[in-house]
Amino acid sequence: MSFNTFGHLFRVTTWGESHGPALGATVDGCPPGIEISEEFIQVFLDRRRPGQSKMTTQRQEPDQVRILSGVFEGKSTGTPIQLMIENTDQRSKDYGEIARQFRPGHADVTYHQKYGIRDYRGGGRSSARETAARVAAGGVAQAVLKALVPDLRITGYMVQMGAKHIDRARFDRDEILRNPFFIPDADVVAEWADYLDAIRKGHSSVGAMIEVVAEGCPPGLGAPIYAKMDSDLAAAMMTINAVKGVEIGEGMAAAALSGIENADEIVMGPNGPEYLSNHAGGILGGITTGQPIVVRFSVKPTSSILTPRRSVNTAGEEVEVITKGRHDPCVGIRAVPVAEAMMACVILDHLLLDRAQTGGVRGRIG
Amino acid sequence: MSFNTFGHLFRVTTWGESHGPALGATVDGCPPGIEISEEFIQVFLDRRRPGQSKMTTQRQEPDQVRILSGVFEGKSTGTPIQLMIENTDQRSKDYGEIARQFRPGHADVTYHQKYGIRDYRGGGRSSARETAARVAAGGVAQAVLKALVPDLRITGYMVQMGAKHIDRARFDRDEILRNPFFIPDADVVAEWADYLDAIRKGHSSVGAMIEVVAEGCPPGLGAPIYAKMDSDLAAAMMTINAVKGVEIGEGMAAAALSGIENADEIVMGPNGPEYLSNHAGGILGGITTGQPIVVRFSVKPTSSILTPRRSVNTAGEEVEVITKGRHDPCVGIRAVPVAEAMMACVILDHLLLDRAQTGGVRGRIG
Amino acid sequence: MSFNTFGHLFRVTTWGESHGPALGATVDGCPPGIEISEEFIQVFLDRRRPGQSKMTTQRQEPDQVRILSGVFEGKSTGTPIQLMIENTDQRSKDYGEIARQFRPGHADVTYHQKYGIRDYRGGGRSSARETAARVAAGGVAQAVLKALVPDLRITGYMVQMGAKHIDRARFDRDEILRNPFFIPDADVVAEWADYLDAIRKGHSSVGAMIEVVAEGCPPGLGAPIYAKMDSDLAAAMMTINAVKGVEIGEGMAAAALSGIENADEIVMGPNGPEYLSNHAGGILGGITTGQPIVVRFSVKPTSSILTPRRSVNTAGEEVEVITKGRHDPCVGIRAVPVAEAMMACVILDHLLLDRAQTGGVRGRIG
Amino acid sequence: MSFNTFGHLFRVTTWGESHGPALGATVDGCPPGIEISEEFIQVFLDRRRPGQSKMTTQRQEPDQVRILSGVFEGKSTGTPIQLMIENTDQRSKDYGEIARQFRPGHADVTYHQKYGIRDYRGGGRSSARETAARVAAGGVAQAVLKALVPDLRITGYMVQMGAKHIDRARFDRDEILRNPFFIPDADVVAEWADYLDAIRKGHSSVGAMIEVVAEGCPPGLGAPIYAKMDSDLAAAMMTINAVKGVEIGEGMAAAALSGIENADEIVMGPNGPEYLSNHAGGILGGITTGQPIVVRFSVKPTSSILTPRRSVNTAGEEVEVITKGRHDPCVGIRAVPVAEAMMACVILDHLLLDRAQTGGVRGRIG
Repeated sequence: MSFNTFGHLFRVTTWGESHGPALGATVDGCPPGIEISEEFIQVFLDRRRPGQSKMTTQRQEPDQVRILSGVFEGKSTGTPIQLMIENTDQRSKDYGEIARQFRPGHADVTYHQKYGIRDYRGGGRSSARETAARVAAGGVAQAVLKALVPDLRITGYMVQMGAKHIDRARFDRDEILRNPFFIPDADVVAEWADYLDAIRKGHSSVGAMIEVVAEGCPPGLGAPIYAKMDSDLAAAMMTINAVKGVEIGEGMAAAALSGIENADEIVMGPNGPEYLSNHAGGILGGITTGQPIVVRFSVKPTSSILTPRRSVNTAGEEVEVITKGRHDPCVGIRAVPVAEAMMACVILDHLLLDRAQTGGVRGRIG
Repeated sequence: MSFNTFGHLFRVTTWGESHGPALGATVDGCPPGIEISEEFIQVFLDRRRPGQSKMTTQRQEPDQVRILSGVFEGKSTGTPIQLMIENTDQRSKDYGEIARQFRPGHADVTYHQKYGIRDYRGGGRSSARETAARVAAGGVAQAVLKALVPDLRITGYMVQMGAKHIDRARFDRDEILRNPFFIPDADVVAEWADYLDAIRKGHSSVGAMIEVVAEGCPPGLGAPIYAKMDSDLAAAMMTINAVKGVEIGEGMAAAALSGIENADEIVMGPNGPEYLSNHAGGILGGITTGQPIVVRFSVKPTSSILTPRRSVNTAGEEVEVITKGRHDPCVGIRAVPVAEAMMACVILDHLLLDRAQTGGVRGRIG
Repeated sequence: MSFNTFGHLFRVTTWGESHGPALGATVDGCPPGIEISEEFIQVFLDRRRPGQSKMTTQRQEPDQVRILSGVFEGKSTGTPIQLMIENTDQRSKDYGEIARQFRPGHADVTYHQKYGIRDYRGGGRSSARETAARVAAGGVAQAVLKALVPDLRITGYMVQMGAKHIDRARFDRDEILRNPFFIPDADVVAEWADYLDAIRKGHSSVGAMIEVVAEGCPPGLGAPIYAKMDSDLAAAMMTINAVKGVEIGEGMAAAALSGIENADEIVMGPNGPEYLSNHAGGILGGITTGQPIVVRFSVKPTSSILTPRRSVNTAGEEVEVITKGRHDPCVGIRAVPVAEAMMACVILDHLLLDRAQTGGVRGRIG
Repeated sequence: MSFNTFGHLFRVTTWGESHGPALGATVDGCPPGIEISEEFIQVFLDRRRPGQSKMTTQRQEPDQVRILSGVFEGKSTGTPIQLMIENTDQRSKDYGEIARQFRPGHADVTYHQKYGIRDYRGGGRSSARETAARVAAGGVAQAVLKALVPDLRITGYMVQMGAKHIDRARFDRDEILRNPFFIPDADVVAEWADYLDAIRKGHSSVGAMIEVVAEGCPPGLGAPIYAKMDSDLAAAMMTINAVKGVEIGEGMAAAALSGIENADEIVMGPNGPEYLSNHAGGILGGITTGQPIVVRFSVKPTSSILTPRRSVNTAGEEVEVITKGRHDPCVGIRAVPVAEAMMACVILDHLLLDRAQTGGVRGRIG
């Protein structure tokens, strides 16, 4: 990773500000000959798109992706793929106050301190709109993975929103894309909607916990010691706006376990080793085991709220800040497709790294 | 990060296996003219050293670091610093069984699947002995930080071991280095020692939670969007052996908070903005605020236990594995100096990145 | 460098194909607060623009650059700068033949062998049109250098075209931008024009030698051993289409010199050491001396010629290839502004690297 | 490349100074399961070793390489390979003068200006002794290439020394390793030896031109636009001490050619396309064609000569410098094995990059 680029070999550089003419992703290192289309990528973008319900920001953005390079006659050529999304709904308004004030919980103050200048319109570069570019890049990664690892399936969903937790006994994967919260349980959707609505009407917001699982990932991906699959996943998730914690498998709960409990015992299955549990979350020593990769991360509550909060302005004067505008009361919701995109990029990146070093050949067992 | 290197500009490449002749770190990008000595680095290594109490592995390693290059007449020259630690206590033993079996919870199986070959002696490259090299590199980072940011102080300590949690009301920094657990509370040391001893005698092990805090870090360090201070810290901690989760500030608990609760309100102090709370853990938008940087991470229980666990061997036969040998019942303990080293490296790295891009000039407030 | 990116800290990723909708450069790592405008960059692009005389390709491209991100209210913000140039003159034609045939001297055959697919329209990614994106990125670098090193001046010019060599005794810097060849000698322009015209009418093309000089570069830039100023410059020039050789200072001629001749003796001047000669081309041990940096490189003759040449097609059949179309008889001409752009990027990159590691402080002499 | 590391995936970091306790190379990214031994690497080091004839420095260094990590039971494990060479012949002497003076043509002055400190003993980091570490790393690359591309053969030799040029009509590969100059012509060895001896006795030195050829390299290696095979080779050669120019195929001579002359016509051979000439030096558009890769580079005359030269010292006083000591009168000689090592590393690196992106599958012709 370097500044605005992530990935070792499948390298994604995002660019663009919330209220500039466009934003996008420059994707380098894509394998050639892969079927990629704007339509395929658009499906992922549509999941993240704002303005779809009152649960997410009312900003209306079609978020139409255009492929400007790197794809020829429907297939990737191996050269950089430029994905551009034009910003269309940049409401003209008076930015006078926001230009001078620092919104608590936002990067306004740190951008100002670091750069001495910032595009204050809608948060500029630090806006969650940047994640649209990631989702587009993730669409490219998904297209490549579909060709190279057809059995791989990446699924993200919400497991907690404020005081609400899902009941894992009622987990229903088919429900995830049918409700605006990406909850794997149809029965609680109405309840969670009311809960969130009350928070919004109370001029507040709420945090969330997201889980992303990759099933069908082959063993052997990852690389000790500093390009581990888990450290790359942790970094990838932590780069998503508002994320404050990341865990793999048992995660933070591992601190309370004993070694006897935590051991994932192994037996021999018809196609190789099988594990009797998955406390490890699919990764041992930074390398995939072939079990599902399980990642969870927390998203802090939206910092833009209508309740006044104390802050200062560029002149060093104390002010009260109320953040009006079109804001998600739970930014964690739209983090779901973003996290899926990041996981797709990381897994593909490691697939390429692995075939570079090992040729993709696996050490045999049995 | 690439394979065995971490850092953008302050680049650390560790090398070596548990039972090879030596291990070490190649440190590139160190600023010139910094006072660095083997004695200064040794202090950090001595904290991590095994064999200091019955709480940690009984392997006896003096872990004496030698500086082979990059330091001349007591000062760094700006060229690569090679830090070598010779392995002296490589007990000869019969590795027949361990060579063929995969210890549950260890990287044995994934290394075998990925590489088709592994140095099975003591875990080879995946052994926690590798972290000695990080601590040595961290010593170099600490020397540079001491010169460039004299007020910076990095402190790691244990906050949880299995069922035991510290009482933050009794936090005493001075106690941390006085007990073998790095606990900031003298009164519970005996109790935790008994607890851990019972676990060890029960042929099991236990997980832990570590917290590392950096005070005095200037604002403006970090870089959006993919070289954020928090994502680099998360990656750095997640590369430490057995770590399963990382969080910044409120961390995973942020999922349950409201936006009103989570806002870190700002007032104007004599030297710039001051914050009324630190839910953010010192980082906003990937850039430091000047508040303490607060990182926590979980360490899974030691996988090497005397209780037999089911597994398979290279021939694909099912076996029972008992891991004898000299193992810490709580590997989290020795993760404390390792985490401090990683944090020192990450902060220094971002200090260098920042002065590259901005010249170290800060945007003024007031 | 990685695939389509160059630079350590000032990182330029170019994207786009000759006949796609657009091409451009994603510039990351730009210092903040620098005055940058489309007009400033356009000046450099206009120098490289095709269709300006019969000496260069007759393709008509306005090559208008648009800044899509990273610049706010006329200044860089420190976030990625996206520079886009739309392709407008994509003549529709039958690409049937070129799609199947490999033009000798072109990358057609190697792209096909490597990727199994290629955008054959106008050379696709391997077209010299890609260099427009570099020139735009170089414009950003020039804007930064203007602010940080006001005395730096980068000048490129042609020193040889086929059998024609400049007479250094008649060197006139002011002439360079007044003639379509970038020759520093007004008196030979007509002669060189006739020479080139005859070559073109003979259905052939011709090579060239370009020299680029940077005056006013501070000492101390560069970094042993593998990020040397000279190795980075050599790599940068060698990435320009059709370049076959690069040399610094005495260059290839150094092979014939004696150590007595080659020594650049040093005396003490009012502002530090001064050199009595510059065989070194301004670089010692990979680090700048403060003398002019002198780089020369050769450009092979345009491979697209009207004279039939033997080749094969994708079916493995032997064919005769005649490359019609709008081609420069001497691609070396337009390499001049491209080389200036590359040099600006490399010097800026090393300026940033240097202030990262040393803080920009120089060891004193006297 | 970053500071002291080169390579994208096969990453070599060299460390160590001329008169420190040791120097070496940390090699990361090596494929697993490759037979590697100290003996295999030593063969390459012995070719570069000083003290073998009066033509090279009389410093006596056994240059015995030790493998400290990454090789287990005779095979690479995929983890970092640490190659260490101890310095044994560090003659104690008075460094007073050299510590204060800047030798013309050496990096003394630029290291001082950049870092403010330098290990002045024997040139410290800028000494050609650093190239021993490259040759050791090149030995690892050669071992991997032997396994993955058995038909590849890399051959370096001298083509010019001062006023002496080889006669290509008399080229005899078998002679190269039989004479101390790596000349491919037994008949001129005595003459060149007398020539060099006279130069040495005249208290001077002389430059050289080296050619390195890789035969049997598969097509499709390299990557547009900024990780081209030719730009990576140019950078690699330019990092070698005293190199001032690099060229591929026709190289600088391409400036004088016409497009008709320069075209490498293609016919269909039994195993794919065949070329009727190789002006391109085996590379088109940055990607290998399958023809021999031909690289040439110039080496400036040794800067350490007994003839007094004017210079300054750290106090800013003008001095006369005579460089006594054990110096090669032609440093180009020992550059031959170094260049072979660099080429082996670059080709292997691109082999790994290629199989990452394309899986090593080639687009078919016919």
